[in-house]
Amino acid sequence: MKAALLAEYDQPLELIDRPAPEPQQPNEVLVKILGAGVCATDLHAIEGLMEPAGLTLPVVLGHENAGRVEAVGDMVLSVQPGDEVLIYPPRSCGVCVPCRRAQDMHCERHEFVGLTVDGGFAEYLVVPERSLVKLPEGLDPVEMAPHADAGITAYHAVKRVAPLALPGSTAVVVGVGGVGHIAIQLLRELGSSYVVAIDPQAERQRLATELGADDAIGSDGAADAVREITDGSGADIVLDFVGSDQTHADGMAMLAKQGTYSMVGYGGTLSVPSVAMVSQEQKAIANLVGSWIDLWEVVQLHSRGRITVKTETHPLDDVNEVLSRLREGDVMGRAVLLPNGEAG
Amino acid sequence: MKAALLAEYDQPLELIDRPAPEPQQPNEVLVKILGAGVCATDLHAIEGLMEPAGLTLPVVLGHENAGRVEAVGDMVLSVQPGDEVLIYPPRSCGVCVPCRRAQDMHCERHEFVGLTVDGGFAEYLVVPERSLVKLPEGLDPVEMAPHADAGITAYHAVKRVAPLALPGSTAVVVGVGGVGHIAIQLLRELGSSYVVAIDPQAERQRLATELGADDAIGSDGAADAVREITDGSGADIVLDFVGSDQTHADGMAMLAKQGTYSMVGYGGTLSVPSVAMVSQEQKAIANLVGSWIDLWEVVQLHSRGRITVKTETHPLDDVNEVLSRLREGDVMGRAVLLPNGEAG
Amino acid sequence: MKAALLAEYDQPLELIDRPAPEPQQPNEVLVKILGAGVCATDLHAIEGLMEPAGLTLPVVLGHENAGRVEAVGDMVLSVQPGDEVLIYPPRSCGVCVPCRRAQDMHCERHEFVGLTVDGGFAEYLVVPERSLVKLPEGLDPVEMAPHADAGITAYHAVKRVAPLALPGSTAVVVGVGGVGHIAIQLLRELGSSYVVAIDPQAERQRLATELGADDAIGSDGAADAVREITDGSGADIVLDFVGSDQTHADGMAMLAKQGTYSMVGYGGTLSVPSVAMVSQEQKAIANLVGSWIDLWEVVQLHSRGRITVKTETHPLDDVNEVLSRLREGDVMGRAVLLPNGEAG
Amino acid sequence: MKAALLAEYDQPLELIDRPAPEPQQPNEVLVKILGAGVCATDLHAIEGLMEPAGLTLPVVLGHENAGRVEAVGDMVLSVQPGDEVLIYPPRSCGVCVPCRRAQDMHCERHEFVGLTVDGGFAEYLVVPERSLVKLPEGLDPVEMAPHADAGITAYHAVKRVAPLALPGSTAVVVGVGGVGHIAIQLLRELGSSYVVAIDPQAERQRLATELGADDAIGSDGAADAVREITDGSGADIVLDFVGSDQTHADGMAMLAKQGTYSMVGYGGTLSVPSVAMVSQEQKAIANLVGSWIDLWEVVQLHSRGRITVKTETHPLDDVNEVLSRLREGDVMGRAVLLPNGEAG
Repeated sequence: MKAALLAEYDQPLELIDRPAPEPQQPNEVLVKILGAGVCATDLHAIEGLMEPAGLTLPVVLGHENAGRVEAVGDMVLSVQPGDEVLIYPPRSCGVCVPCRRAQDMHCERHEFVGLTVDGGFAEYLVVPERSLVKLPEGLDPVEMAPHADAGITAYHAVKRVAPLALPGSTAVVVGVGGVGHIAIQLLRELGSSYVVAIDPQAERQRLATELGADDAIGSDGAADAVREITDGSGADIVLDFVGSDQTHADGMAMLAKQGTYSMVGYGGTLSVPSVAMVSQEQKAIANLVGSWIDLWEVVQLHSRGRITVKTETHPLDDVNEVLSRLREGDVMGRAVLLPNGEAG
Repeated sequence: MKAALLAEYDQPLELIDRPAPEPQQPNEVLVKILGAGVCATDLHAIEGLMEPAGLTLPVVLGHENAGRVEAVGDMVLSVQPGDEVLIYPPRSCGVCVPCRRAQDMHCERHEFVGLTVDGGFAEYLVVPERSLVKLPEGLDPVEMAPHADAGITAYHAVKRVAPLALPGSTAVVVGVGGVGHIAIQLLRELGSSYVVAIDPQAERQRLATELGADDAIGSDGAADAVREITDGSGADIVLDFVGSDQTHADGMAMLAKQGTYSMVGYGGTLSVPSVAMVSQEQKAIANLVGSWIDLWEVVQLHSRGRITVKTETHPLDDVNEVLSRLREGDVMGRAVLLPNGEAG
Repeated sequence: MKAALLAEYDQPLELIDRPAPEPQQPNEVLVKILGAGVCATDLHAIEGLMEPAGLTLPVVLGHENAGRVEAVGDMVLSVQPGDEVLIYPPRSCGVCVPCRRAQDMHCERHEFVGLTVDGGFAEYLVVPERSLVKLPEGLDPVEMAPHADAGITAYHAVKRVAPLALPGSTAVVVGVGGVGHIAIQLLRELGSSYVVAIDPQAERQRLATELGADDAIGSDGAADAVREITDGSGADIVLDFVGSDQTHADGMAMLAKQGTYSMVGYGGTLSVPSVAMVSQEQKAIANLVGSWIDLWEVVQLHSRGRITVKTETHPLDDVNEVLSRLREGDVMGRAVLLPNGEAG
Repeated sequence: MKAALLAEYDQPLELIDRPAPEPQQPNEVLVKILGAGVCATDLHAIEGLMEPAGLTLPVVLGHENAGRVEAVGDMVLSVQPGDEVLIYPPRSCGVCVPCRRAQDMHCERHEFVGLTVDGGFAEYLVVPERSLVKLPEGLDPVEMAPHADAGITAYHAVKRVAPLALPGSTAVVVGVGGVGHIAIQLLRELGSSYVVAIDPQAERQRLATELGADDAIGSDGAADAVREITDGSGADIVLDFVGSDQTHADGMAMLAKQGTYSMVGYGGTLSVPSVAMVSQEQKAIANLVGSWIDLWEVVQLHSRGRITVKTETHPLDDVNEVLSRLREGDVMGRAVLLPNGEAG
């Protein structure tokens, strides 16, 4: 089968041909990959930044995967050949304390598809049954693929602040990219805040308002702009999908009394005098990817038409061009590779 | 091996000899049973009342089991031979939506050890790895056995009302039996209410106060007595471990404005004019057994000395005498059978 | 001033002329009534059923009031003459424990405007400052008036179950009247359930779907119909705005495992075997009117266009005709009286 | 009456004689001060650091006050002359949105007794009724005085993290001073964590274990020590009552995956790379003083014997010596002044 391999850092992925994998354990499932989203984390992996997360070379990238079940092991209970599925990227053991608390992404035996084990920039992939969410009929797996990471990252972060998104509150989304453009929709779906989107690109500001943001502004002077929009009081919730020194500083600077600054993107240093946080009783919280049940819930929302993903599709062969465009900020929403072609 | 079989309703259990079971699946574990608690549900099973729950004759009873791991299948990750364990009685698949929400007892492929499949009134038992909670060193598995059902039933019910057990509130425990005597301790551990225990037996009222109840009273006129204790306002929380027409009526009658009546025991009919509940904004809620994580947390509490179980031990051969004493209300706390003898 | 007085039970209200009231305390406010909603509770009052709630004859009815501030006492801080306001009907002291927990409707010194003290079926009303929610500019106080009781009753009930209204769940609204038609909108706004409305009138079923219900069905055989809609699993949430023996029985009969039956309407007797509730781990909860902050939040939602109220307006002189039409089930949404005429 | 006035920064308080205040408004109450706790915030006030919080010279300090009601205005409902009371230090209006959400300390018209308005280092004080919590009979107001600030600060912070203090978790208290020594007791009362106290003074470590800490260690190398105590996993909860660059850095360094670092003390700068927080999904939260209802709940706990305050008493005339000893770290628990002498 065809696969796109990260063999060396800072080099294009190698398009190779290798035998398709086969289930080794009775709880494993063979999936034909129909769509594989391309994410900024893939860029970080290529830059060599994901070793602390457990990546070792060589590895097939691709952690936003949708596909069709081809074969199942003897102990598999919940899917059968022909089912269309999303692949939840964290591999979890199901028997440790975090797994038993439904926090699969904190599994003590954690692996991550497409980073620490081979992923879906390939025609086929074998995963344990626990990694699969079955799609309801009538949904397009290619369009759904980005939910496997971008969707649940947005959902997990928004769901945690949703109890704060009360009528009368203001929520800010920093960064209208692959994750942020879903978060805007979810803030509307799960909360009742006035939603302000921040992005340097005018085109993305337009996308934000199309998707339900009440206001969309640029990055320069964003903290002051949010103060003005809120009559001086600041934002009750700031969701930061960028994560730089600048966005960390701006995020805290635009925060209201009792406000919550929630980081999804990372990269800079959060630096804040404690007197400011204590006197205003503020929070800074951080988010990982969501849980399996988060992915299941995202699928339910999508199937009801409550959220969409803006996607563009490309053949697997174009993976390096797609990565370049993502690096340049030229992808709106999410690019999805089609390892098995348009027909699937 | 020796086992106590329910072969016919309303008859004594049959003490039989049969081959010890062996693991059939790579995720299964063979456990030598060191202690098996005897519960009122065993009486209901013998009376033929558990068919709606899926029981079919014949079956080996016993759902409060502690033991030692003897052998493990190839895929087992979290225990090894020699480990001492509790057996969480609901068998759960780990891949359905309730399981992925950490609500194992609502598993779509639910079985229950000692009711719908063979249980621990026997020398050995085979269970899936998901059914095991490993005990920290230094704990006595025989004393811990009742936590596998009585302990987590109490914990699950108390944990759900704990956010209501605020300083200044009053909580009532109806029935100081195997479950209730643990619930009293847990109300103290997880909440800050003034705790009133209700039981017709003076000896159990004494046990209640020894275990931390602030007051203990008889069942006759209990609703009036609770009104008096609370200066007329009633109890904010009533946990009913009995469940009869009388306790349902009393439970609602002793409830404060905004109070919660929480049923664990069952049997009667709850009947209440809705105007009474609406005008006082009250709740009536019901509880099943706890989750696997509830059992893990109960073990942590016990290992820290925060709760105890009052137990008496008996050889497996005495199972029918023990069941008779339980039926007569002559067991204080919990009786535990020793299928492999004192030495284990 | 003109006022509609309940002087005798089961008789038409008397249209009387009496001096307008004046503020007696420095924390009181004189309000010119621009709109006063007519509610089923007014019918109950006329029928003599509200004495347990503290009503004594004679009393001016009207507890869904909107108006304009005419004069304020010396200690009033938050409103001034000319402000348009809603009147939160429970009068609360602000210094007892329930008030300090933001549960104004459980105030230890509770009164209720239009039931235990004179209400807004009159040209003017004096209330304490704590009873007022100031309206943002640009809203129509007449259209908003029903929020003062119907709106916050719906909001309070929906907000309590909103954490259960997860993607993939089903919520049922029983009764598409003054309160229910707002609840349907709020379920969509605060939750992600599939929403089913139940009402015997076809016209109200149509209104339900216009307001966002995913399905609307009749009352006959409703429990079976809900089972069918949910592939047998039942509704996770049932909000009952009717409250009869029939709706109580149906509500429990259509409930899913772990489901919540939530009563707002009342009148019948809830009667259910505890084994059914325990084995399915269900809840029956009851709701009073909402808190002041609930009303403030409802106003924010309305001002953002997230909810609407279906209203029809009538002169105060027509109050008895309006009450008759309400009694006959001929009012769609809410009828609002205009004690000071169209112009206000 | 006698009072201790802050007239000039960095100078001893002036012991002056001035007329006792009298109620001016019908909602005001005259209180004879029986005990007034001395707090590190008083030192900050003397150092001129509380101007950002609204302090203007001259002002009578003292914000941890207990006393007896001497006279009440016409509109006062909940206390009468002779009642013993604590004075909740934030003055709140009762009609703004934060007040209506029970968050008195975020009142839009906020004042703070003993900082922005005159406090209790004086024989008498006039406060609005909303500032009073009535003491149950039989409690010693002098011993209770520190609850008015230290007690509710500890309670508010612990209550917010209590849902995380699950069996099996570890909680750290940094700083065993006036607030911290109450927090240790409250962690035990409201949670089930293993509790580790950190303080440089051996005597305070001893106090911590007497009050229920499971372990007490010094400040040097504290992050490593906590890692060791927790077998490498770190603390699930860190409550920092000190607040310096060092404790902020240590607090984050000793934090477990999914851990919460909660600041009460302040002074340094929290500086942390966002990748560390995101990859471990951690939180940094900050706390102000508690709400009125927090103080009421603390009083209930104290009256049940669940918490104590370690106090030493001094005449008001010794205020400057007491402040010096506090500055030197020589006060264990809390020093309380007696403006009306031992007899009250």
